[in-house]
Amino acid sequence: MAENVNEIVDELVSVARGFYGRGWLMGTSGNLSAVVQREPMRLAITASGVDKGELRPEQVLLVDENVRVLNEARTPPGFLTTSELTNKAAANKPSDESLLHVRIVKERGAGAVLHTHSIWNTVFSDLYATEGGIRIDGYEMLKGLAGVKTHEHSEFLPIVDNSQDMASLANAISKTLNAHKFAHGILIKRHGLYSWGETLAQAKRHVEILEFLLEAMGRTAILKTGKA
Amino acid sequence: MAENVNEIVDELVSVARGFYGRGWLMGTSGNLSAVVQREPMRLAITASGVDKGELRPEQVLLVDENVRVLNEARTPPGFLTTSELTNKAAANKPSDESLLHVRIVKERGAGAVLHTHSIWNTVFSDLYATEGGIRIDGYEMLKGLAGVKTHEHSEFLPIVDNSQDMASLANAISKTLNAHKFAHGILIKRHGLYSWGETLAQAKRHVEILEFLLEAMGRTAILKTGKA
Amino acid sequence: MAENVNEIVDELVSVARGFYGRGWLMGTSGNLSAVVQREPMRLAITASGVDKGELRPEQVLLVDENVRVLNEARTPPGFLTTSELTNKAAANKPSDESLLHVRIVKERGAGAVLHTHSIWNTVFSDLYATEGGIRIDGYEMLKGLAGVKTHEHSEFLPIVDNSQDMASLANAISKTLNAHKFAHGILIKRHGLYSWGETLAQAKRHVEILEFLLEAMGRTAILKTGKA
Amino acid sequence: MAENVNEIVDELVSVARGFYGRGWLMGTSGNLSAVVQREPMRLAITASGVDKGELRPEQVLLVDENVRVLNEARTPPGFLTTSELTNKAAANKPSDESLLHVRIVKERGAGAVLHTHSIWNTVFSDLYATEGGIRIDGYEMLKGLAGVKTHEHSEFLPIVDNSQDMASLANAISKTLNAHKFAHGILIKRHGLYSWGETLAQAKRHVEILEFLLEAMGRTAILKTGKA
Repeated sequence: MAENVNEIVDELVSVARGFYGRGWLMGTSGNLSAVVQREPMRLAITASGVDKGELRPEQVLLVDENVRVLNEARTPPGFLTTSELTNKAAANKPSDESLLHVRIVKERGAGAVLHTHSIWNTVFSDLYATEGGIRIDGYEMLKGLAGVKTHEHSEFLPIVDNSQDMASLANAISKTLNAHKFAHGILIKRHGLYSWGETLAQAKRHVEILEFLLEAMGRTAILKTGKA
Repeated sequence: MAENVNEIVDELVSVARGFYGRGWLMGTSGNLSAVVQREPMRLAITASGVDKGELRPEQVLLVDENVRVLNEARTPPGFLTTSELTNKAAANKPSDESLLHVRIVKERGAGAVLHTHSIWNTVFSDLYATEGGIRIDGYEMLKGLAGVKTHEHSEFLPIVDNSQDMASLANAISKTLNAHKFAHGILIKRHGLYSWGETLAQAKRHVEILEFLLEAMGRTAILKTGKA
Repeated sequence: MAENVNEIVDELVSVARGFYGRGWLMGTSGNLSAVVQREPMRLAITASGVDKGELRPEQVLLVDENVRVLNEARTPPGFLTTSELTNKAAANKPSDESLLHVRIVKERGAGAVLHTHSIWNTVFSDLYATEGGIRIDGYEMLKGLAGVKTHEHSEFLPIVDNSQDMASLANAISKTLNAHKFAHGILIKRHGLYSWGETLAQAKRHVEILEFLLEAMGRTAILKTGKA
Repeated sequence: MAENVNEIVDELVSVARGFYGRGWLMGTSGNLSAVVQREPMRLAITASGVDKGELRPEQVLLVDENVRVLNEARTPPGFLTTSELTNKAAANKPSDESLLHVRIVKERGAGAVLHTHSIWNTVFSDLYATEGGIRIDGYEMLKGLAGVKTHEHSEFLPIVDNSQDMASLANAISKTLNAHKFAHGILIKRHGLYSWGETLAQAKRHVEILEFLLEAMGRTAILKTGKA
C-alpha cells in the first residue's frame, strides 16, 4: 500500500488547491478523499477545518472504515516521518463528514469521493429541493460522466435534506444511492455536492462536469428571462 | 513580541494577495490587520493606498491603539532593518479606517480584522440598508463561523451608514457590535465588509464564508426570477 | 517538419492550460489542434480524455488526415524519445472529434482549430439554436477577427445540431462552412464552439474574441431587464 | 530618460498580464501606455495586436507625439540591445489608437493611459450611450479616484460614439475631456474604457475602481429585479 500513498496525497493536495482557486472550497469547507487500500479500507482524507488553498500533505489523514486515524502505515522512506505523523495526529482530526465518504466508497465501490461547496451547487440544491433533484439532459458535457456515451442522456442529480446527525445523513445518502443507481453525484440541500469516481482523476472530472452543467443551466434560465 | 511579527506580516501579505486575486481589494481598497501584542496594543496593519496585489512586507505598519506608527519594536535579526523602517515610515501612513480596526479589536477581543470591498458585499450593503441588515439562515456554510454548530443557525449581518467622520463611524460600529453580540461581520453601506476572528486564519475564514453566502443568496434570488 | 513540432506542442499545452483556467475546457472536454505539415497532412492534436489543466506534451498526438496516430516523425533530438512515443501511443488515442478538426483544416485552410466548452457558448448554442445562429454586430472587439476592419461588421455565428455520428457531424459542419463563407466560428447545440485561424495565435485570439462577445451580449440582455 | 525606461516597461508588462488575467484585454485587445519623457514627448506603449497575457518587454514600443516608433533612446546597458530593437521595429507597429493615448496625455497631463475592453465596460458603454454617460455616486470606492475625498461624490463617466477615424475619435475625446473636466475615464460605445493617472500605479487604480463600480452597479440593478 505504502508506495502509492505519497502520490495519492500529492494528487489530493493538487485537486484541493485547484478547486479552492475556483471558489468551491471556501472558508475551509469541503472534504476530499481517495482510497489507498480496499481490504481493510484505508482512506486518505483531508483533515477537518484546514484551508484548502494552502493544504499541505501532512493535513491529509489516513483513516479506516470507522474513521479512526492511522499512521503506522505511512513510515516508508519518502513519506512522512514518525514525528511528523505524531504531530499531525495531534493537530488534526477527520471531519464528521468522513463517514459519508466511507459510505459512498462502500456503496459505489468508488476510488475517490469529492465534496465541494460551490455557489451554483448551493443555489440549485436550494431551488430544486422540493422537486427532489435536478434533471440534466441533452448536453454534450454529460459524456464526461463515466458510462455516458451520448448527449441524449438524462442525468438525475438527487437532493437530500441537510442534517447534523451524520449517521442519519449517511443513511439518507445510502438510500438515495440505491434509489438512483446511475447517479454520478448527490446534492445536500443548501450544503453542497458529493461526487465520486473510480479514480481521483475521474472524480475530479465528475465534479467539473456537474459544476459546469449546473452553471450552464442556471445562466440559461437567467438569460431566457432577458432574451427579448 | 518581535519573534512572531515577521510571521504575522507574511501571513497578512499572503491573505492580501489572495483576496486581491478574487477582486475583494481592488484599486488599493480595503485594510487588513492582525494583533501582534495585546498590552500595550500593537497592531500590524496594511498602509494606506497600497496595491494589495503587490503588497510587500514593508507596507505593513505597526501601530498602537491610537494608530501612531511604531518601528522600534521591529529591529531583531530577520525583520526589517532600521533604514527600511525609516524609509517605510516616510513613505507610508496608516489608513484613516485603522481606527475602526482598533475599535473592533477592543470590542470583540479579535486577533485580526479584515476589511474587504467585494462586488457582492457592496451590492447587499446597498439593497438591504433600509432593513438594517441581512438575515442569513439555513446554510451549511454558516458552520464556518466561529461558534456555529449547525446549519439551523440564523446569522444577522448588520449594515451601518457610511461616513467620512471616523470617530463617528467607529462609534456607530461599537453600537452595532453591542446590539448584535453574535454577529461575525458588519457591512457599511455602499462601502464594504468588516469581519474578524480570534486569529488571522479564522478572520480569513469568516470573510470567505460571508462572501460565499452573500453571493449564493444573490444568485439564488436572481435565478428564482428565471426559474419557470 | 520536425523542427517546429516541439514548439507547436508547447504552444498547444500553454493555450490548453490558459483556457482550462478560464473554465473553457472543464472535465477533460474540448480539443485543440495545430497543423504541423500540409502535404501530407500532419496535425498535432490533444489526446482524448486528458485533463487540460495538467496537459503534458506527451498527451499531444500527431495524426494524419484519417486521424491515424503517427509517431515516426517525432524522433529528432529534443523531441520525445521512441519509448516515450510508444508509451504515449499505448496510453492515448485521439478524440472522435478529431475528424471535425481535419475537416475544418481542409475546408478553411486553417493552421489551428480550437474546440472549447464554455458556459456562455453552451448557453447561446442552446437559446439561439432555433434561429440557426447568432448575429453579432457593432462591437469594436469584432476587429479581432481576421479580415474585419471596422466595428460596423456583422458576424453570423452559425449553430449546427449536435450528433454522436462524427461523419454526419463533419458533413453538417462542411455544409455550414460553405453556407457561411466568412464565419470565424461554429457553435454545436448544447455542445460548444469550434473556431480556427491561420496560426495557433490567431485561433486563440478568435476564441477569446467570440467568448468575450457572447458574454457581453448575454450580460447586456440580462442587464436590460434590470435597467429601470 | 533612459534610466527609468526599463522599469516603466516592466511595470506595463506586469499590469498587462494582470488585466489579461481578469479578462480585460482579451484577444489582443486594449492598449497600455506610460510617459517616459514629457519634452519632447516619449511614450512607452504596447504594440498593436500582441497577446497581453504573454506580453514581453520587447513588445512595448517607444513613440513620439506623432506616434513614430523610436529606438535610439533605448540603448543603455540593461535595456534592449540594438539588434533586439531592430528586430522589434521590424516585427511590431503601434496601434492606431496610440493617437488617443497621446491626446489624453496632452489634455490631462497624464503620466499613463490604460485602455481596456471588459465585459462590464462594454455592456455599460452600450446600454447608457443614449444618456451620454453613466452617473456613479455614493460609493466609498469613488475615493480611489484621484482628488475624491468622500463617498458623497458624483462621478460622471461620459460615453462617446465609436469610430474608425482616429483623428475624428481623438477630437471627440478632446471635446469630451473639456466638457467633463473632472472625469477620470471615458467610455467608447460598444468598445471599451480609457482611464489615466498621474502615474501608472494611479492609472491602474482608476481602471480597477471604475471596473469595480460598473460591475457593482450592474449586479445591483440585476439583483433589484430578483429581490422580492
